[in-house]
This record gives sequence, C-alpha cells and structure tokens, in this order.
Amino acid sequence: MTAPCSLTEIGWEEFRALPPDHKAVYLQAGAREYHVLLAQQFSRERLDALGRLATRIRRIAKADEGRRYLRDLLAGRRAMLYFTQPSSRTFLSFCAACQILGMDIGEVRDTAVSSEFKGESQEDSVRTFSSYFDLIIMRSQIGGLAERMAWVLSNTDRPVPIINAGSGKDQHPTQALLDVYTLQRSFERRGGPDGKTIVFVGDLARGRTVRSLSWLLTRYRDVTQIFVAPPELQIGEDVLGWLQQAGVQYERTNDMAACLPRADAVYMTRIQDEWDAAGESRRIPTEAFHFARRHLDLLKPDAVVMHPFPRRQEIAPDVDSDPRAVYWRQMRNGMWIRAALIASVFGKDTAIEASHVLDA
Amino acid sequence: MTAPCSLTEIGWEEFRALPPDHKAVYLQAGAREYHVLLAQQFSRERLDALGRLATRIRRIAKADEGRRYLRDLLAGRRAMLYFTQPSSRTFLSFCAACQILGMDIGEVRDTAVSSEFKGESQEDSVRTFSSYFDLIIMRSQIGGLAERMAWVLSNTDRPVPIINAGSGKDQHPTQALLDVYTLQRSFERRGGPDGKTIVFVGDLARGRTVRSLSWLLTRYRDVTQIFVAPPELQIGEDVLGWLQQAGVQYERTNDMAACLPRADAVYMTRIQDEWDAAGESRRIPTEAFHFARRHLDLLKPDAVVMHPFPRRQEIAPDVDSDPRAVYWRQMRNGMWIRAALIASVFGKDTAIEASHVLDA
Amino acid sequence: MTAPCSLTEIGWEEFRALPPDHKAVYLQAGAREYHVLLAQQFSRERLDALGRLATRIRRIAKADEGRRYLRDLLAGRRAMLYFTQPSSRTFLSFCAACQILGMDIGEVRDTAVSSEFKGESQEDSVRTFSSYFDLIIMRSQIGGLAERMAWVLSNTDRPVPIINAGSGKDQHPTQALLDVYTLQRSFERRGGPDGKTIVFVGDLARGRTVRSLSWLLTRYRDVTQIFVAPPELQIGEDVLGWLQQAGVQYERTNDMAACLPRADAVYMTRIQDEWDAAGESRRIPTEAFHFARRHLDLLKPDAVVMHPFPRRQEIAPDVDSDPRAVYWRQMRNGMWIRAALIASVFGKDTAIEASHVLDA
Repeated sequence: MTAPCSLTEIGWEEFRALPPDHKAVYLQAGAREYHVLLAQQFSRERLDALGRLATRIRRIAKADEGRRYLRDLLAGRRAMLYFTQPSSRTFLSFCAACQILGMDIGEVRDTAVSSEFKGESQEDSVRTFSSYFDLIIMRSQIGGLAERMAWVLSNTDRPVPIINAGSGKDQHPTQALLDVYTLQRSFERRGGPDGKTIVFVGDLARGRTVRSLSWLLTRYRDVTQIFVAPPELQIGEDVLGWLQQAGVQYERTNDMAACLPRADAVYMTRIQDEWDAAGESRRIPTEAFHFARRHLDLLKPDAVVMHPFPRRQEIAPDVDSDPRAVYWRQMRNGMWIRAALIASVFGKDTAIEASHVLDA
Repeated sequence: MTAPCSLTEIGWEEFRALPPDHKAVYLQAGAREYHVLLAQQFSRERLDALGRLATRIRRIAKADEGRRYLRDLLAGRRAMLYFTQPSSRTFLSFCAACQILGMDIGEVRDTAVSSEFKGESQEDSVRTFSSYFDLIIMRSQIGGLAERMAWVLSNTDRPVPIINAGSGKDQHPTQALLDVYTLQRSFERRGGPDGKTIVFVGDLARGRTVRSLSWLLTRYRDVTQIFVAPPELQIGEDVLGWLQQAGVQYERTNDMAACLPRADAVYMTRIQDEWDAAGESRRIPTEAFHFARRHLDLLKPDAVVMHPFPRRQEIAPDVDSDPRAVYWRQMRNGMWIRAALIASVFGKDTAIEASHVLDA
Repeated sequence: MTAPCSLTEIGWEEFRALPPDHKAVYLQAGAREYHVLLAQQFSRERLDALGRLATRIRRIAKADEGRRYLRDLLAGRRAMLYFTQPSSRTFLSFCAACQILGMDIGEVRDTAVSSEFKGESQEDSVRTFSSYFDLIIMRSQIGGLAERMAWVLSNTDRPVPIINAGSGKDQHPTQALLDVYTLQRSFERRGGPDGKTIVFVGDLARGRTVRSLSWLLTRYRDVTQIFVAPPELQIGEDVLGWLQQAGVQYERTNDMAACLPRADAVYMTRIQDEWDAAGESRRIPTEAFHFARRHLDLLKPDAVVMHPFPRRQEIAPDVDSDPRAVYWRQMRNGMWIRAALIASVFGKDTAIEASHVLDA
C-alpha cells in the first residue's frame, strides 16, 4: 500500500521546516484531507463542504434507519485514540464520531501502561499500535508528534491517516472546525460567516483555540474580528500579522460591553492559568471579561454566545437558558463535524451525499 | 426536544425536598421509567413487567439470530458510563446490558482525566459529556448528583435519561431490581415472591442493598422479612418504620441457624467496614453470621442463598456447588434486568414482547 | 451447560501437577482448543490449520463486504480482557482480533478499581466478571492463574473459555503462535518452517517468548536452532533438554555475525532487565548482540528479521526499511492469528473456510 498523500516525496527535516500553509499540500489526498494536522489545510470550499456533510450526517442520524445506514459505512474499520494528553471531552467527542460511522475503537491513554516504560521509543509505540488500526486520532503534549508520525507512517508500506486532536501549544484543528461549523449553523439563514463581526473575549494570548479560529476566519469575506482582553492577555502580534496580511479588519480593546452591540458572535474563553509560570494570572483583574445575564440585553436578538469549554466564571450559569447561548450545541457540533471529517478521510462523503436514506 | 417526564414542571429545590415516593412520579414517562433514580419508582406491576421482559431478552439471547435481533434494537444509540465511584462489577454489568441491545459505550471513570481539574463544575462536565450520548448511567460518591443531573438535563433542550448506578449511601435501584428479579426467577413455579420468607444476614445497618430490597419487597403480598445481625449492625429503625407502615411482618434476631429452616431465601451480606470511623467492625464478633456448608442441611430443598457480592468469609466456597446457591446466577440476572430496563427506557419493550424471533 | 473440555474429569491438584504436554488434552474440545493456555496444546496440524485460517481471515478483511461478513460471525458475543499485568500491545492486538469478529469488549485493567480492594478473592472476581462474558482473555503476573480459572469455570454450570495472554514468567502461547505464523507466511513459497535455520539473539535466559517459540518449532521437521547470547543470558538447560529429546539440531554461540549468513530467520530480543535483582544486566556487554544496517549485507536475500517488540537498541531504526525486516508485519500477524484462534474456539472456523465471501 502506498500513502495517498505526498509525504512520501519529501524528507522529514525538509517537511518539518516548512511553514504551516506550505505543509498543507503534503497532507492531502486529492481535494480531501488524508492526514488532518493543521487548520491551514482547510480552504473555504472544504470548510463549506465539511459543514454541509456534517449537517447531512446530523439529519440522517435522527432516525433509526439513518443511524443504521451510518453505522454500516465504516463497519469493520478501527480507530485508535492515542490520548496521552488527557481530555475527556475531546476523547468522548471523537469516540462518538467514530461510533456514529460504525468504527470500532481502541485507546491508549496512559503511556505508563504502554511498553514505553520498557524503554521503547514513542515512535515505535505509535507505529506498533497503528498496526491494528485504520485511523489514528492523536492528542499529545509533544508539539509536532502528530506531524512526525504522519510522515513516518506515510513512508511505511502500511500508511494510516492521522487526525491531530491537539498537540502541544500549537494546533487543535478539529476544535477550529467545530467553531467554524457552529458559526455556519448559527448564520445558516443569514449568509454564513461572511460579513459578520466576531468578538473574542478573555485570555487571547494563550491556548490554541482562538488562534486557530481567527486564522480560519480569514477564509471568509469581510469578517471583522474584535479582541477583548486585559493588556497582559491580548492576542499575539503574530496573529495580527496574519490578519493584516489577509486584509482582515480587526480591533483590540479591553471594553467588552462596548463591543457587544456590534457582535454577531461573542466567543468567550477561560483564563488558561495552567500555562502560568508562577501564578501570574491571579494578579490580572478579569471580572470585566465575564459575561453576565445583564450582558444579554446588549446583544442583538440573532447574535450567539460561544465558549470552547471548560468554563469557570466567564459565563454565568443563568445565561445558559437564553436561546443565544449556543455553547452546548457547539459541543455537539464537534461530534458532527468530526464524523464528517472521518467519513471524508475514508472517502465516504460522496456516498453519504448521494444516499437516499433521508427520502424514506 | 422536550423531556418526556415532568421534571420540567417543578423547581429544583422543591423537587429535592420531596420524599422519595413523591419524587417518583416526576421521573416517569407515562407508565414507564424515564430517569431511573429510586427504588420507590417501581410498582408491583412494573417489577413484574420488567422481570418478564428480562426473561424474554435472556431467552432471545440464547441463539445467534436472537442476539442479532437484540443488537439491532438500539444500534446507533450511545450510553455514557459516568463511574466516578469505582465498581468493576456494576460497570461491566451495565456495559454488557448496553452491548446486548447494540448500544455503543463511552466511559468516564476518573474525574482527574476530565476537565474538572481545569476548574469546571461537575454539572458542566456531565452536561457536556451528555451532548455526545443518548443515555447516562451514573455512579457517584455524591449523594443526589444523579437526581440533580436528571433535573438539569430535563430542563435543557436536549434531555437525556439518567440511570442511577449507585449514589452516595442512599440509592442503588438496579441492585434492588436484580435482587427482586432473582427472587422472581427462583420462585417462578411457586407463585413468585408473594408469601415467602426472606432472611437477611450480616451487616444490615450500613450499605444500601438490604435497605432497597427490603423496601421493594413491600410491593409483594405476605412477605416475611427476618433480619439476622449482631446488635451493632441491625437494620435501621427507619426501615422498620416503613415495614410497619406497609403492614409487613418482620423479626429481628441474632440467631441465624434458628431462622434457616423457615427461609425461602437467605440474603447474606458482607461487613461493610469501609464505612467504619475507626475500625470498630473488627471488635464485633461476626462468625455466627457466616454461612457454612453445614447450614445447607438446615435449608428447605427449594430455598435459595443469595449474596450481592463481593463476599469475604460470609459464605464458604464449598457452598458454591450446591444448587441452592444462586449468587452467581444473581450476578448474571443483573445484566438481564438492566438490559430490560434500558430497553424499556427507550420504549423498545413492546417490540421485544411482540417479536417473533423466538418462534423460529 | 457443561464444559466441552475434560477439565470436569480431573481434580485441581491433580491437574496442576501434570507436566504441560499432559495438561494439553484436558483443554481441548475435540480437535480444537477450548481453553488456550499452553504452547504445548498445538500440534503441527493445528498450527498449520490456524495459520491457514488466519490468512483466510486476513484476505476476507480486505474488502468492505468481507469485513461485514466477519463482524457478523460473533456479533452479540462478549469478550472480557482481564489485563492486570499491563501491556498495551497485547491488549490492543486482542481487542482488534475480537472486533474483527464482531465481539463486544469489556475490560478490567486495574484491580484497584475492581472489588478486590473490598477483600474479595481474585477467583471470585474473575468468576463474577465472567458472568457477563462469553470469553475471557487473561494476562496476569500470577503464574497459573489462567489455568486455575480455566479449571474453576469448567466446573461451574456456566463454563467460559479462557485464553492466556501471558501469565507470570511461564507461558504466552499466542505470542508463540504469532511467531510461528510469521515464519509460515515468510516461508510460504519455500515449504514453510520445515528445514529452516532460526537464529535467536539477545537475552535468551529470561522472558517467555524465545522459550515458547523454540518449543513450538519442535513441531516442524529439520529446523536448526542457533542461540546467540552472552554467556550470562544464554538459553536455559531445560530448553536444550527438550530440543535434545525432540532430536532437534541446535548450537550455542556468542558470535552473531558468524551465524547470520546461514539464517533463514533472525529473531532479535531485548535485554529483559525488569527481571534483574540488582541491575546486573548493565554489567553485561551487549553491543555485540545488536543488529545494525551493516548486518543486512550478511543476510540471505530471502531471510527475515523478527523481533517481538518492544525494542531498544537491538535493531537500528535504519534497518526498518529493508524488506527483510518483517517485525512490523509480525505485530499485525498477531492480530490475525488471534482472530483465527478466537473464531476457532467458537467453532466458526469451518464456516469461514466454507464461505463464498471471497468469490464475489
């Protein structure tokens, strides 16, 4: 078997040194993604196609017959969830996505249980485990491990696609996809994300969610991005660099209330103090970046409030019951867009689009 | 989607304050259970109906064709096993029950692996995880968590049924169901549990098994309950209160041998020293509450010996081979009654009863 | 239900005391294995039959239709993976084997999570868990536990087959099977393992892999076995005893390079320092027992290099890309031979052999 992507045509060191948008082309199998490693792999067309596929899968899954149809698609295929960086929500979301399509699952969560304690390299471990599976979904503290394994496995005689479920500080492409899908669904009857104003609030300096989403939004026309944060946690200069280069309109401010009336979507985030060196977050006043019930009055009637979760005090629980609070649905969108992505990696997208199961 | 139960019509604090038998009505969807939280939910009619359904499922599952029929019933549905209080036997029993019906499973066992360590509330965690599932089976140290989550989820736009698999010191309704089912099966040709004498032996003061079973037996006519324990571990006054109110005949004694000739079922239990404050159980002499091979001679030929397991020295291993020792079958009954319960929650009971798969 | 093997006809102490080749007959159900505990159970005919079955399953699994056919074979059957001795690779390999055949899986990995901490005997635990399953796959530090449980369960009214996935220092029969299957496949067009020269290299004194394989190779004609190790880690006298008794030609040496030109298969192994009492392995010079890229030049063009994994420095990573390095395929062979074994335990071998699914 030869890998359907072109990672076979480039050396590891050369590939590794490329900027993300140049890496993207090596990960594709024709128009589709083969390895899913980087937000930069997704063109506007692909974002829209995957969103449509996710919606179709979601609708098919509403009835018993549709659920059986979906489960038959990848029956007999197995996915390994290699999650050495723990995350129950991402794990369960991918798990459900695989199960919707009928895949069986194996998991490695604790490397102490694996043979690594016998002195095996992580590369050997992953390659060994991959022997038993048709897809690897990988979440790791080690930045670049998913890329490395994608290159290694593509250059064996049993290549297996890899989906990055979060690696190091850099990439978490399926989180960005689910955020885009949530915007697509939220603005379904208003022309999609084009022309909308997205307000990011909270800890914008750290964590990969806002960075990836901000980047992916450059795929859409006339999106205004507003970054609301205390000065110490403002969005990085590199992101502003991208935005400028892409001709995107953006603003930076620390006044949340002032931005809310203009927002089509408010994307709240948590203070990521797990990256603190010495508890410095505690010295930053963050109450001004919490969304309370009274803020709902400032929002447009068709705006939405999003949050990647977990949350602490960023959004008061009594906001949850407002129809504009879409963060619970956002979770569930993650499951659907991941199912769409996996179906696409295995080339089942055309079958799903052509199927008559919804006509019944 | 609106919850099919009436938890939407009552506030949390009001619901929480109700006594168990008043709570029950809020958890039902018509005649069936929607959330399964309390032993008090089960009427005599429901106990009998679930027992019949369990037996039917058990028979259907004997052949390949029947197993396939059952697996198709809930194919494409997913159950989350949220087991933050560990219990392999209850976990595996529910796991098997779901698999019999074709459900896929996701699990959360260790909260340290979940996002709770990032400061998320347990309520947010459970609700998030519930996004990916159609059923939550929950076992927790926290008394009342299952009730709280049932109320919370019923008041969202994506309600999901919850089955309590043991919460705190109070309730473990499916254990009580499996005990009743074991009595139903054991006395199948002798008119069921009505009119029988049940002897409870051991640590009757602590743990929820005996309490729940004793309560459920009040649903049957003319059952005599005998409680055999050292004085320090005798059954609580509150239980005797129920029994008196229900007009049930009971006795308390510390003489096991004297009761055995009258017993239709002997329900042995373990000293639950995990609830000790300071090892006080060790000072209580308990040998007189152990069932040895010689005690079999005192039993009626059609009596049964039960145990909820795990056991220590309460029953000598050489009792295991006697046909009246039904505790291994009792384990397996748990799997069948749980499968029946889950099938019923999803409204598949009528289909199973009407199916022709056994006629083949 | 009565166990189809004859463990019902012998007492435990009598069975336990038998030598392995006398035990074998008690574990069979007719010509097939019922419990799989010992390498000594497999005759030449069975090794060949299982190898053929594994190859047939592997071919059927190449297409969607074949994968669905296989998944239907044991649909509705459940396997428990009781892995109290951790091993991700063996776990995932068995997991995949079960999934190929459509079995559902339950697992017990951590005895601390089981009821054993409540004072239950391990025997009660395993028997309890077995209530919910149709097959037990067991890996344990405790030598003989799998044998004991096979005897215990065979003498109950619900016998369940047990597959030993590694117990104590002694047996790991499915590892030996996969090694034999790798030799069968590697020499498929050269008459199989008969007449070949197998060179074992490394730590031959400890670990069960080499011992079991060496033993199983006595089932083949005219196999020469060469043991290459530092004196401290040479193969045990007991193994040489078997070989002598079986009339097998063998050599012992510490000169790896000298043996390579004659080898049909080189079986590399890791220094098993987890068995060290006080780090004594570190004082043994082992570089002379590492396989480097330059050693490939000494090998015949159709020889193969094997390794049971995990590896450390025994084989340089730049050997991996040579077509004679079959150790990755060897991993995958484990999955196929285990699937064949499980299919056979459930009597599905004849159906697989007779099926027309490959004719399509």
